[in-house]
Amino acid sequence: MTVEIISVGTEILLGNIVNTNAAYLSRQCAALGLSCYYQVVVGDNEARMAETMKTAIDRSDVVICSGGLGPTEDDMTKEVACSVMGERLVEDAETHRLIEMYMGRFVRSHRGYQITENNWKQAMVPEHGIVLKNDNGTAPGLIIDKNQKIIVLLPGPPSEMKPLFDQQVFPYLQRKQSEVIYSTTLKIVGSGESYVEMSIRDLIDTQTNPTIATYAKTGEVHLRLTAKAENEKKAKELITPVRLELEKRFETQIYTEDEEETLEMALVRLLYDHNLTVTTAESCTGGAIAARIVNVSGASSVFRQGYITYANEAKQNMIGVKGETLTRYGAVSEQTAREMSEGAACTAGCDCALSVTGIAGPTGGTKEKPVGLVYIGCTCRGKTSVKELHFSGNRGKIREQTVVTALAFLRECILNSL
Amino acid sequence: MTVEIISVGTEILLGNIVNTNAAYLSRQCAALGLSCYYQVVVGDNEARMAETMKTAIDRSDVVICSGGLGPTEDDMTKEVACSVMGERLVEDAETHRLIEMYMGRFVRSHRGYQITENNWKQAMVPEHGIVLKNDNGTAPGLIIDKNQKIIVLLPGPPSEMKPLFDQQVFPYLQRKQSEVIYSTTLKIVGSGESYVEMSIRDLIDTQTNPTIATYAKTGEVHLRLTAKAENEKKAKELITPVRLELEKRFETQIYTEDEEETLEMALVRLLYDHNLTVTTAESCTGGAIAARIVNVSGASSVFRQGYITYANEAKQNMIGVKGETLTRYGAVSEQTAREMSEGAACTAGCDCALSVTGIAGPTGGTKEKPVGLVYIGCTCRGKTSVKELHFSGNRGKIREQTVVTALAFLRECILNSL
Repeated sequence: MTVEIISVGTEILLGNIVNTNAAYLSRQCAALGLSCYYQVVVGDNEARMAETMKTAIDRSDVVICSGGLGPTEDDMTKEVACSVMGERLVEDAETHRLIEMYMGRFVRSHRGYQITENNWKQAMVPEHGIVLKNDNGTAPGLIIDKNQKIIVLLPGPPSEMKPLFDQQVFPYLQRKQSEVIYSTTLKIVGSGESYVEMSIRDLIDTQTNPTIATYAKTGEVHLRLTAKAENEKKAKELITPVRLELEKRFETQIYTEDEEETLEMALVRLLYDHNLTVTTAESCTGGAIAARIVNVSGASSVFRQGYITYANEAKQNMIGVKGETLTRYGAVSEQTAREMSEGAACTAGCDCALSVTGIAGPTGGTKEKPVGLVYIGCTCRGKTSVKELHFSGNRGKIREQTVVTALAFLRECILNSL
Repeated sequence: MTVEIISVGTEILLGNIVNTNAAYLSRQCAALGLSCYYQVVVGDNEARMAETMKTAIDRSDVVICSGGLGPTEDDMTKEVACSVMGERLVEDAETHRLIEMYMGRFVRSHRGYQITENNWKQAMVPEHGIVLKNDNGTAPGLIIDKNQKIIVLLPGPPSEMKPLFDQQVFPYLQRKQSEVIYSTTLKIVGSGESYVEMSIRDLIDTQTNPTIATYAKTGEVHLRLTAKAENEKKAKELITPVRLELEKRFETQIYTEDEEETLEMALVRLLYDHNLTVTTAESCTGGAIAARIVNVSGASSVFRQGYITYANEAKQNMIGVKGETLTRYGAVSEQTAREMSEGAACTAGCDCALSVTGIAGPTGGTKEKPVGLVYIGCTCRGKTSVKELHFSGNRGKIREQTVVTALAFLRECILNSL
């Protein structure tokens, strides 16, 4: 089956936002074994949207649209799709009830708000459509499956679009496919993309089924193995020997083989399994490392408190870094990173501590200590290691790389201590 | 003039890379006053690429293609464009010389490489085309300007595409334009998108020049005013009365009119201007609020330290929340939020403090205190206010909304205290 991705939104055509939805949907469709030949972006204009949808539904089996399902007059994706597919719009009682509930909660907590007439527009659905319940917003997703053509309508915000697609559209489309596609992802930390590619060049050059694709993420490389077969069991059997070979080559650098598991989730699991607690002492990342850890549901069993020690006095008062160390070596130094992590572990009474001090820029760099210089300290069961790193990019990029590298370093130190 | 952006590359259709080129080109075209109605992505397939280019050149005045100018057989954008525009390919001596020079340097520094036959393919250019010298790669950019239609071909890598566009294509297209476009953005916190739209429905209904567009962000709404005129001064004059009217309607809810300024930047500026310092005490957000503040270069003048008090003992030990308060009202309560922000302000010796305690889920909710219940406390110059909120969505979404709402609440409390 072929698929075409249509993204609706004038803000994409103005270049105000980058079209990450199209990339996400294309990747998921590739995983389903669907062939994507076109992605199109069209604005909130009825005639152009209708023309685009007609062309798409003529040349592709499945059309996935995102955006333009909101409550305002500009939002007309649903109306246009219904007209193209010859569907009437009718009110869905359940969606009406959910909007009432969702908006009611919002109205109660935001003084001066009220449910406006146009909110109810979102309760209208195609007469023969399948309504996909949206747990993260008011506009439901919709599927119109008619005359051997499928059109899928999803809301634009990624936080609503992604769960709707993964939980409801993905299995729906999967059932329409005769061959099964099975994928597994090995997530690697501690090596760059080109090094990973070099290490598996021989496997990539001879790949047919399964295929191996590498994806570079900030501080991580994901290897995705995809096999096609008549059923899932056979597809898994095709993947097994390649997976075992990769495990042999990357060993503990693979932190998970679970698509859904993030680095912080793997880390919290590791801490939990070994009955360890952790604390953080952050300077240039300003709480972002702790925020990543706390992002994991259940983090409270391994993480109780963290320190954001941005100023020198905070490093001294909160976690006992010595004034002399700061004067002699500077706030961004191996010694300070060491005292920060040891001080944090001791003050919080934790088994492990992670500390970060660096120059995220754009100002504050010198010839000896340039922007991008970061020290990461890690104390684990009384033993402290410090890593010096040099990152490039803007302030946000440097901090982002620091966070991932710090989490990976903590994982490495824990594994070494076992 | 209308413009259409075509991005060529199977890797975009597979979702392996996000199409940032289209966003960049669209933004630049908007600045030029070109109306972009379509962005299309097509793979390295001759028939589909030809069809896509024909459609584009029929319905748009300018077509900008990026990608597919490389040396391999897959790269055929130039060949297809020439066939669509009725142009013959001829060798360009200067480009041949530059490729020789560029590749020679590469070969000398990479052992084992050699210049292959297909590298010379890049020296072929359309007979009546304009050749744009590429300082960052071997494929030159090309412009075919023929029969009132312009087709621009650019290499795919952003590091080559952007300088080529900015330095050579932008001025070329600017000379073709009689009008300029000027935009300004008003960023609003504290109201939802549909409420904002209702409040300006009368202005939107009568808009022609300038136009008003609303964009919903997490916890924010952006209003973009765009005017067309013969020069920038006249465009600004057209915008002024609408801008003043919006300022009257939304008053202090507008936190900035600077496209580049984020909420945290506006907040740091406000604190700095009034010589105030701030600290944070975070439970469910786990450091994410502080991380947003520290994201601002220069935050050190207003922010020195922050507390991540995830466990009850941390709330007691770090910032002096009373054990009795926790037992009697619970960790997620108005009283705890109040003691957290007052305790943090006092412990850190800051003018302001922001505290957050809530249930981000997915577990931990009860009937009385459901998932999504969040209390935000704000102490500002000795006065504390607490806000109760009910958010929906998954853990990440609840935390994201909490962070933005907390930053907006701090801003509101500071403004009220002046």
